Amino acid sequence: MDLVNHQFRLAARPVGLPKPSDWQYTDEPVSEPGDGEVLVKILYIGLEPAMRGWMNEGRSYISPVAIGEVMRAFAAGEVIASNHPGLTVGDRVSGLMGVQEYAVANGNALFKVDTGIAPLETYLGTLGMPGMTAYFGLLDIGRPGEGETVVVSGAAGAVGGVVGQIAKLKGARAIGIAGGAEKCDYVMQELGFDAAIDYKSQDVAAGLHEHCPKGIDVYFDNVGGEILDAALARLARHARVVICGAISQYNATGAMRGPSNYMSLLVNHASMTGFVFSDYLDRLPEAAKTLGGWVAAGELKSREDIASGGIDAFPATLLHLFEGKNTGKLVLKVAGD
Amino acid sequence: MDLVNHQFRLAARPVGLPKPSDWQYTDEPVSEPGDGEVLVKILYIGLEPAMRGWMNEGRSYISPVAIGEVMRAFAAGEVIASNHPGLTVGDRVSGLMGVQEYAVANGNALFKVDTGIAPLETYLGTLGMPGMTAYFGLLDIGRPGEGETVVVSGAAGAVGGVVGQIAKLKGARAIGIAGGAEKCDYVMQELGFDAAIDYKSQDVAAGLHEHCPKGIDVYFDNVGGEILDAALARLARHARVVICGAISQYNATGAMRGPSNYMSLLVNHASMTGFVFSDYLDRLPEAAKTLGGWVAAGELKSREDIASGGIDAFPATLLHLFEGKNTGKLVLKVAGD
Repeated sequence: MDLVNHQFRLAARPVGLPKPSDWQYTDEPVSEPGDGEVLVKILYIGLEPAMRGWMNEGRSYISPVAIGEVMRAFAAGEVIASNHPGLTVGDRVSGLMGVQEYAVANGNALFKVDTGIAPLETYLGTLGMPGMTAYFGLLDIGRPGEGETVVVSGAAGAVGGVVGQIAKLKGARAIGIAGGAEKCDYVMQELGFDAAIDYKSQDVAAGLHEHCPKGIDVYFDNVGGEILDAALARLARHARVVICGAISQYNATGAMRGPSNYMSLLVNHASMTGFVFSDYLDRLPEAAKTLGGWVAAGELKSREDIASGGIDAFPATLLHLFEGKNTGKLVLKVAGD
Repeated sequence: MDLVNHQFRLAARPVGLPKPSDWQYTDEPVSEPGDGEVLVKILYIGLEPAMRGWMNEGRSYISPVAIGEVMRAFAAGEVIASNHPGLTVGDRVSGLMGVQEYAVANGNALFKVDTGIAPLETYLGTLGMPGMTAYFGLLDIGRPGEGETVVVSGAAGAVGGVVGQIAKLKGARAIGIAGGAEKCDYVMQELGFDAAIDYKSQDVAAGLHEHCPKGIDVYFDNVGGEILDAALARLARHARVVICGAISQYNATGAMRGPSNYMSLLVNHASMTGFVFSDYLDRLPEAAKTLGGWVAAGELKSREDIASGGIDAFPATLLHLFEGKNTGKLVLKVAGD
């Protein structure tokens, strides 16, 4: 083969927002898949807020990306050569394949996806890690009951949008917090939330007071900071706070801001519990089947915000997440279908 | 009757530490008990960190003490007149009787105590609200398993000392955090904790690293602030953080300090849950019976730090709590037995 693979590797650990010099752009010849491996042409790369954490040094739920290593990423693409019995050329797959144009991967580490249910890019969003994160966090930790009030921040994002829709499917009320009128419209009109609070133009505490007259039963947090504090101040008795992310804090150069209203947990006999996607690896088939069923039945809507520009656009596109630019799952289109 | 009752009433809502002018010292003739009521001569008053919160305005788990109202307090004393069928003159009782020398109370709201098991003042500590707070918080929320590591802050206090001892009775390891060598000695030598960390002379993070090589399974927090952050940084997977109090923050005049290491909950799939004693009112008999059994069998040690000076000494004695002066339950002796 004489294909060339372009890649982004981590060049330096960022301080604050990742800057161009934190990346190294490399190319190398595409290698042949070994036994049990496949060669995948990557078509889409998922951009995750969690990527910012993977770039940091230090103990976490997953080892940091090493300096010089290809940046970790969920990606989706097409098998173009296979030495794996379960995958054939032309199959569409997703998995942790990195920020590059071609990946050689063990076939067992990839998921074969059904583009009859949804387009390939949806397997990086609602039917991928973000959707499953929403599924496990809401149902396993949040456990909304019928008629309860679920509030989710980052509601127009890939995880938040699924959280609110599953809450509705379970008979709960869904209130979203998002930045800007357009996102709030999307959350209410397209995803069917009961209400949305625009944190850029409204007072979040006042909005929560208005839309959660009996308090918040489940708060699913993707953002941290002031919004987490506002939600804590409005908890109902026995509320469950699900800590999924803290995008407002990921690029902080000082200490993270802790939730100063945490004593609301005491007053309300409430709990705050964290989790990550990888805590639930043994239950991925269950989540894939359930989410796929809802999407196929039209009960779960999905939107991807597809950035163009190919692999070269990766560093700039990643910043869209931290600027709050995307509505729905932010994916980078690397090559044409 | 011509008895005179001296009382402390709340004169103003304190800013920071309560000062003398926040109190009003009053006297009034002792009134006759009505139907179903008893007259109690108060012998001991319990001093609680929670008292500081009761003095603040605003929504909490219990209504604030009103300006002009007798300060709320758990107290223990002797029935000196009774119109209640279940209580007779000479009975020893405990309950919410306020900071005063005599109380007229509904007999149903008082607990008749058995001074054959422990002295009266112990019913304000290990066999009273603090002991039961430890019991419910540790066993219902912390749920330590055999061989697990339990860390408790304020370990030499009325709640913390019971937490560590119950942890040991359940087969867990107990590590205490306390201020000063004397308190650490007490916790280890008298209460039987496995280790103690003196936050005044040692680095708490280093101490937790040394004594919790596999991480903290249960952290029972009475103090908040820096120590809570140090404990969060050392959680084991699936750890349970029990939020019982935050004495380091109660007199803060600015915003409370939130735990900036709360994302450790996410990394470790851990939870942080708050509670108050009154969440468990229906289970008080169970706690009283279990704790009383352990005390009677010599398996649960108790110490009270008895302040003298009578009712007049209340305002100054309360400050001992916030100065970390007391070892064991701080009680004010109001009258001789």
